Amino acid sequence: MRTAIVQMSVTADKAKNLAHARQLVRQAVQTGADVVILPEMFVCLYENSAFTQNGEEAGGTVWQCLSDMARENGVYLVGGTFPERDGANLYNTCFVFDRAGGQIARHRKMHLFDVDVEGGQRFKESDTFTSGRDVTVFDTEFGKLGVCVCFDMRFPELARLMALEGAKAVFVPAAFNMTTGPLHWEVMFRSRAVDNQVFTVGCAPARDETGPYVSYGNSIAADPWGKVLARAEEKETILTVELDLSEVERTRTQLPLLSARRTDLYTLERK
Amino acid sequence: MRTAIVQMSVTADKAKNLAHARQLVRQAVQTGADVVILPEMFVCLYENSAFTQNGEEAGGTVWQCLSDMARENGVYLVGGTFPERDGANLYNTCFVFDRAGGQIARHRKMHLFDVDVEGGQRFKESDTFTSGRDVTVFDTEFGKLGVCVCFDMRFPELARLMALEGAKAVFVPAAFNMTTGPLHWEVMFRSRAVDNQVFTVGCAPARDETGPYVSYGNSIAADPWGKVLARAEEKETILTVELDLSEVERTRTQLPLLSARRTDLYTLERK
Repeated sequence: MRTAIVQMSVTADKAKNLAHARQLVRQAVQTGADVVILPEMFVCLYENSAFTQNGEEAGGTVWQCLSDMARENGVYLVGGTFPERDGANLYNTCFVFDRAGGQIARHRKMHLFDVDVEGGQRFKESDTFTSGRDVTVFDTEFGKLGVCVCFDMRFPELARLMALEGAKAVFVPAAFNMTTGPLHWEVMFRSRAVDNQVFTVGCAPARDETGPYVSYGNSIAADPWGKVLARAEEKETILTVELDLSEVERTRTQLPLLSARRTDLYTLERK
Repeated sequence: MRTAIVQMSVTADKAKNLAHARQLVRQAVQTGADVVILPEMFVCLYENSAFTQNGEEAGGTVWQCLSDMARENGVYLVGGTFPERDGANLYNTCFVFDRAGGQIARHRKMHLFDVDVEGGQRFKESDTFTSGRDVTVFDTEFGKLGVCVCFDMRFPELARLMALEGAKAVFVPAAFNMTTGPLHWEVMFRSRAVDNQVFTVGCAPARDETGPYVSYGNSIAADPWGKVLARAEEKETILTVELDLSEVERTRTQLPLLSARRTDLYTLERK
């Protein structure tokens, strides 16, 4: 499963971002990609005012544009996220499309990003967003994949639930910052991969030091042993990486972790 | 809470190992330690035949020796592990003692180590050991601490349960090997620390290339931000590190993770 991780530069101009994404997806597919992933909030700047201004419904311009990109290129597209409007609510949502441009998954960020680090990053997503309620796993010709959004990946419960529901790789549109990125980005993607013996893929916007929220970049892919398969720096780039999903079963046979859980002593379940 | 991690060399001779541990604990306390931790299976070689030969009941020679070390030095002692015999069963057990030498916790390894890595490590603990059934958190003058044994730490559920039950630091007598050590040791201690915003402490035997099971060593302590506070190499050594448990609350306030869990959507519970 050849996977292209599009670490794109994002501006304040939605139309420009969409056109740019479209061009990068085309470029990614020329490297033979089966799956392409875009970053969190690839349509607008990462600030609450931009979220409300750029909100759109499923089926709207951004959604349609993502569907077109998937169909035109015959590729699976994990479409980053955009502010999804649904009635009075706004969600930080990732839509996933199949090779024919059909929507096959929708993940609304379940854990909103509210932090206030001393001398570091502050942000309160819950000022504008409503949180999602679903664990999101979907079928592809390669097997089941999972998707969650950025801060969601910090919660071992969610990654575990995705793995238990059959996900062999977890795709994460994300945007860590210059406080949490250097400390936690790589260790998070590696540990979720090791603990669940799945591939993990993180796609971040390229870094813009002048923006309201400075993305760490460093888009990444890790294998079920927790080895980093590819990692970007901070600039715009397309990372291409081959994920052999049969490694998941091989790893689990050699080092049985999921099957060694003491489900007689503790339970982790969706409510 | 000044903590000494005793990465000791272990031989086939139980009496010699006990005397050596006693001397190292005394030495550790001279550095001002409040808590001392010994490695997994510090009394015998890491092989199933040695486990059955060296099995002893709680209250036996090894247990008494550990209690004495704690009392004589006025220190909390996380007493590594030894093969604990209880009727027909053998457990891989860690006993914890307070400054007066009283037993304040007992953790029987809950997840047994059964692996068979292609071209790498093989081991089947379940051939000799019975698995424990308890999540182990205990009180000290510094606050609550948790303890588990080696392979237990691979399961995010257990570390999470310890944190939810109040543990501010998790102590882990352990012995990773030359296959899993380089790949997983540090990322595991760092990620459990970050995810649960606790301190983590791992204590391994020193490496002996000639032994039946070659320990990775690399005893380690990480803080609630996932920073490595101290890390040994492979040789026998005493690592001393100051753990300021008030950092746990400060970290959780700045980056709310435990409180941001979606307990309305998923549950993790002891059965």
